[in-house]
Amino acid sequence: MTAMNRRVLLKSRPSGEPTVANFEISDAPIPEPKEGEYLSRTIWMSLDPYMRGRMDDAKGYAANVNLGDPMVGGTVGQVLKSRNPKFKEGDYIAEFSGWQSHAVSNGAGVMKLDPAAAPISTALSVVGMPGMTAWWGLMQIGKPKAGETVVVSAASGAVGSVVGQLARLRGCRAVGIAGGKDKCDYVVKELGFDACIDYRAEGTNLFKAIRAACPKGIDIYFENVGGAVQAAILPQMNDFGRIPLCGLISQYNATAMSPGPDWRLLLIKRLTVSGFIVSDHFTTMGEFWKEVPAAVRGGQIKYREDIVKGIDNAPEAFIGLLKGRNFGKLLIQVGDDPTRK
Amino acid sequence: MTAMNRRVLLKSRPSGEPTVANFEISDAPIPEPKEGEYLSRTIWMSLDPYMRGRMDDAKGYAANVNLGDPMVGGTVGQVLKSRNPKFKEGDYIAEFSGWQSHAVSNGAGVMKLDPAAAPISTALSVVGMPGMTAWWGLMQIGKPKAGETVVVSAASGAVGSVVGQLARLRGCRAVGIAGGKDKCDYVVKELGFDACIDYRAEGTNLFKAIRAACPKGIDIYFENVGGAVQAAILPQMNDFGRIPLCGLISQYNATAMSPGPDWRLLLIKRLTVSGFIVSDHFTTMGEFWKEVPAAVRGGQIKYREDIVKGIDNAPEAFIGLLKGRNFGKLLIQVGDDPTRK
Repeated sequence: MTAMNRRVLLKSRPSGEPTVANFEISDAPIPEPKEGEYLSRTIWMSLDPYMRGRMDDAKGYAANVNLGDPMVGGTVGQVLKSRNPKFKEGDYIAEFSGWQSHAVSNGAGVMKLDPAAAPISTALSVVGMPGMTAWWGLMQIGKPKAGETVVVSAASGAVGSVVGQLARLRGCRAVGIAGGKDKCDYVVKELGFDACIDYRAEGTNLFKAIRAACPKGIDIYFENVGGAVQAAILPQMNDFGRIPLCGLISQYNATAMSPGPDWRLLLIKRLTVSGFIVSDHFTTMGEFWKEVPAAVRGGQIKYREDIVKGIDNAPEAFIGLLKGRNFGKLLIQVGDDPTRK
Repeated sequence: MTAMNRRVLLKSRPSGEPTVANFEISDAPIPEPKEGEYLSRTIWMSLDPYMRGRMDDAKGYAANVNLGDPMVGGTVGQVLKSRNPKFKEGDYIAEFSGWQSHAVSNGAGVMKLDPAAAPISTALSVVGMPGMTAWWGLMQIGKPKAGETVVVSAASGAVGSVVGQLARLRGCRAVGIAGGKDKCDYVVKELGFDACIDYRAEGTNLFKAIRAACPKGIDIYFENVGGAVQAAILPQMNDFGRIPLCGLISQYNATAMSPGPDWRLLLIKRLTVSGFIVSDHFTTMGEFWKEVPAAVRGGQIKYREDIVKGIDNAPEAFIGLLKGRNFGKLLIQVGDDPTRK
């Protein structure tokens, strides 16, 4: 247990790509829990693309981070001291305490974790927010039917990897888009996708590479990236195709608007595009909880973690995430995980 | 009965706006019905924006018109001679015989009309394809709830006028966008919309005018036009808004792609955009038939026809339609209507 609460604050708002200068490492006294609260230490901290939007001033779908406050984000931790009868010292919890080593909470929205059910870090990936994102977008918007072709961008990432594996479990052809040979090999050989296209290697040949991997066209495009990948995919959508719009990571650092596709394409092909954010749907995830944790334990759904040790390295790791440098779910290990051998 | 079949053929494909030179008026012998067929004379011919796409070479959602063939389109006619036991001389029918004064048909997809149930011309407007388009897009994609705000562009037209009236019947605030004071007055005073904005008069003030008319934001935008109207509306959509994408008339004459909005807008607001064409849904229109014809007879849904006499005037009238010159459902009267006083 460190003597201080180590925090990463938002120091200034980025214009375009964030730099480490937008963040500030800062120690503060460890807070004391009041009656009804508990104090936890952070073990795992999640870094996710949506956090880029929280750094801006502009209205997004959630409140922005105020300058001088810790960055927000999901965490897995352990209770150190409790004045709340629902939480005991030593309990493992998934919470939303942000980029800091310690936090107090009244327990609202906090989930207790059973280390025997799944590794506690997966509460930030495949059986946490990214897994739910994949499940909700694919099932509720994509509505996959056996024999259909599902394409997902950022396919080796925390969301994309689950999308493709769920699609396979439903009898669909799953095609990933990822950056680099290692990621594509992993997506096909480890995760079992039918194909994966390296958008960096293909360059201007991307359209043709997608066509070769999707000989029957594309029924569902799970959108995580936007930009050139989207432009190559949309003309290859089949009539009545569905596009769960989950993220647009290639545009998050853009300082100007990024024009989208001509809507005549959506009209002629009768496409549906639906933007969504998983936190709107946390209360209607019943089917997710029935299916996904068991599939992870049974090995039908695999996952990969990209672990960076030390909270001080979070800014650099986050900047890399926006550039696709991570390989698997990006986690910051802030403290010791006693459940891990 | 004329001695010849008067036809309007597609002579050449337009680049951008069509001109009368793209069409050719041509007489041909009146065809003879074979066994199982009937011959009809055209009384009413429908002109609709979608026909612009049929003039192109590019793939649309239906087959293009071949050069030298009559333009396609919905018609209302009367049987002159029949060798099909289901159709008798004198029967009124709604069919899809295109821009010509006479046609033979085997009766597939043809609907018999009862002049006592509704004026036969309305089979081309409010109780025909445009009315079904309004109903399907609003109900199946828009899913209006009482108290929501519904905005529809081309509000005085065959589709838009029904969208707004159906929205009002469901307890929504209905706001139209139309071009010119006369149309806006009609939309509010005759059709009962809550407000209508003259996009031509407002010009660069359009965004503010829409905001004033939609103080609670916009829940459903029924899209018929695209372009500047769309650009002013999208930022005013409420979270979880729905956009039935029915048409993009402002873009139909464009020779290059028209960039659409930044998808970050769809993502942040969790909007759904769904392109549709009513002919995909003709077999699932049961609720439409229960509601709309009775509402038209009862006066809860009103309509307006813009009648141009003479098939030779169809090209000029169609060109005007694409510029918004019509006021109400544009019909060509090709022959005498004995059911009209």
